[in-house]
This record gives sequence, C-alpha cells and structure tokens, in this order.
Amino acid sequence: MSSPLYLALIHYPVVNKNGQITGSALTNMDLHDIARAGRTFGVKAYYVVTPYKDQKTLAFQIMDHWTHGHGGTVNPARKSAFERVRVADTFEAVCNDIENEQGQAVVKVATSANTQDPTRSCRRLGQELKGNAPHVIVFGTAWGLVPEVINQCDHILEPIQGTGSYNHLSVRSAASIYLDRLING
Amino acid sequence: MSSPLYLALIHYPVVNKNGQITGSALTNMDLHDIARAGRTFGVKAYYVVTPYKDQKTLAFQIMDHWTHGHGGTVNPARKSAFERVRVADTFEAVCNDIENEQGQAVVKVATSANTQDPTRSCRRLGQELKGNAPHVIVFGTAWGLVPEVINQCDHILEPIQGTGSYNHLSVRSAASIYLDRLING
Repeated sequence: MSSPLYLALIHYPVVNKNGQITGSALTNMDLHDIARAGRTFGVKAYYVVTPYKDQKTLAFQIMDHWTHGHGGTVNPARKSAFERVRVADTFEAVCNDIENEQGQAVVKVATSANTQDPTRSCRRLGQELKGNAPHVIVFGTAWGLVPEVINQCDHILEPIQGTGSYNHLSVRSAASIYLDRLING
Repeated sequence: MSSPLYLALIHYPVVNKNGQITGSALTNMDLHDIARAGRTFGVKAYYVVTPYKDQKTLAFQIMDHWTHGHGGTVNPARKSAFERVRVADTFEAVCNDIENEQGQAVVKVATSANTQDPTRSCRRLGQELKGNAPHVIVFGTAWGLVPEVINQCDHILEPIQGTGSYNHLSVRSAASIYLDRLING
C-alpha cells in the first residue's frame, strides 16, 4: 500500500435509533482501539470529529496522558498509537487538513452497516489504495453517518457481512475488520 | 461453515508485561464487543473465563442487564449478542462444557500476537471450520496466554500482521479480525 490512509470517527452529525440527527459522546475505548488498529495497519492519522468543546477537552486530556503523560511512559506502544490521533470540529475540517498535508484531493469513503448501495468492495478499494491518492475512511458513532456526510463521500464501502443478517458490530470491530481487509485482503 | 465455533477469553492465568503469571480484571467492553462480533459471525457461545468470585458476579450482573434487564428491552440486538455469553472458572471447564454440549472432542486453537511458531494459517483453519469438529478459539487478556494454556491447545493461529512490526491490537480488534478471516476469508 502506498496511498496515505486516514480514518475519521464522526460524533456529530450522526443519526440516533429513530433516524434523527444527533451528537454522540466520546468513548475512551474508541480512541484506544481504533488508534491501535490504525497504528497496526499504517494509518497516517485518525481524526476524532466532534464540535463540542467539553468533548474536545476530554479527547485532548486522554491524548495528553498517553503521549506526554504517565501513560506514554509506562506503555510506549500505546503512545505510538495515540501520536496519530487528531481532533477536528467537522468532517470538512478533516478533509481540509488532509488536503493541506498531502497537497491533493482526498478520496472520501463512507462506511455503513445498512447501505443497500455500496459502490466499493473491500477488494477493489484495497487495490485502489496501492495507488497514490490519499483516502479517508469515515465511520459514524451512534446509529451511523447522516446522509449529508455520506453524500459528500466519493464511495460507500460494502457492509461487513457475517453468517446471517445481524449487523451490530461495534465501530471498533468494524474499523479493525475493514483495515485488515483493505491492507491484507 | 458448519463446525460449531466457540470463543474463550482468559482472565487467569495470563502473563503480565514482565512475563509473570497474573489474573486480569474483567473489562465491560470485552464482553460487549466480542459478544457482538461472535453473534455476527455465528459463534455458538463466548466464554468469559475467570476464577474470581467478584469478577464472576460482575460478569453476571452485566449479562443480566442485557438479557433480562432494561438493556435487553431497549436494545434487542445487544440482548441477542449477550445470550451467547457464558462464564467459566477455567479453560478446562470451557472445554468440558463444549464437549458435553457437542458430544465430541473440541479442537483448541490458541492465539498469540508474539508466537514464532504458528501451526495454522487463518486460511487453513477457515477450511477446517467447514467440517464438523467443534472448535474453540482462545484469547488472552493482559499480555497474553500463558505457555501452559497454549500447550493444551491443538493449534496456534498465525499472528495478525499489519504493515510493520507493531503488534498491539486490542483483544477486541484481534477477535473481530480473526472471526472475519475465518468465516469470510
């Protein structure tokens, strides 16, 4: 793989169980698990996206503990994962940041457990990641991404299918499986 | 796949960062994420293994909330995942329980992020899971399984490789990736 690969985890706007637009709270384990999976699979940066000031403060406190605080001293592997975590207000800010860093447009890839209309298989996207274009894979918290975010994306990745119709993986599991499929598949 | 597939997450005995035998505390997110991944990929049961009475009590409280309590009412998908979670004192008790349920020997598969001597690739084990023999995939908490448990197993599964030498996935991520590889690979 040579495409610069980024992840974004959206906390606002997302949908709630009734399909309404909502904002979700930061989850400590989302930061840890997805940072570790990102570090494992060569992700350049993992953006935690929330416009809420108190949630951003919490994110920075957790990140500081694991990069500059005691956590990073006792667990250098965790430090090395957290060094790639970034905080952004909006998905637009994420894309601008990547485009500034890479000097070219970023290909935006939405994920959804429910989509009826995926436009990319993991196999095909994995092949495309052998190119040069920067890509960002976008995950929703709560009940998933809002249509407005999905519609901004260039592709919708195929849902992860198990043995039946149950499609309630945690976002931590889904991000890990997608990264493995895209990089090793 | 037709082999009855089981998971076991060992909290004692495991190794600590200095390679000594230790017991680890139950983590709420381990129950949720691995139960959801197990449910997604058709696992028969997911055993949380701990000999500590207070830890077993905690596990049962969490399980009760999501199967018979309010959690299961508001989130039936989570209930359906938690209905396959079981608690056992020891790895031996897990194997006995599976063998009683299935009426035949269970094939025991250890996982390790560090092993130099894997005896099964995910691809080969995935093929073997199309047979009839019940299998249990065994995961360690803390810094991983002790040699005494690994030595009881029939196979050691290949470590999950990313793009480099970093091998610090969460057990939640590792279990999810292994299940996807074994069932969909």
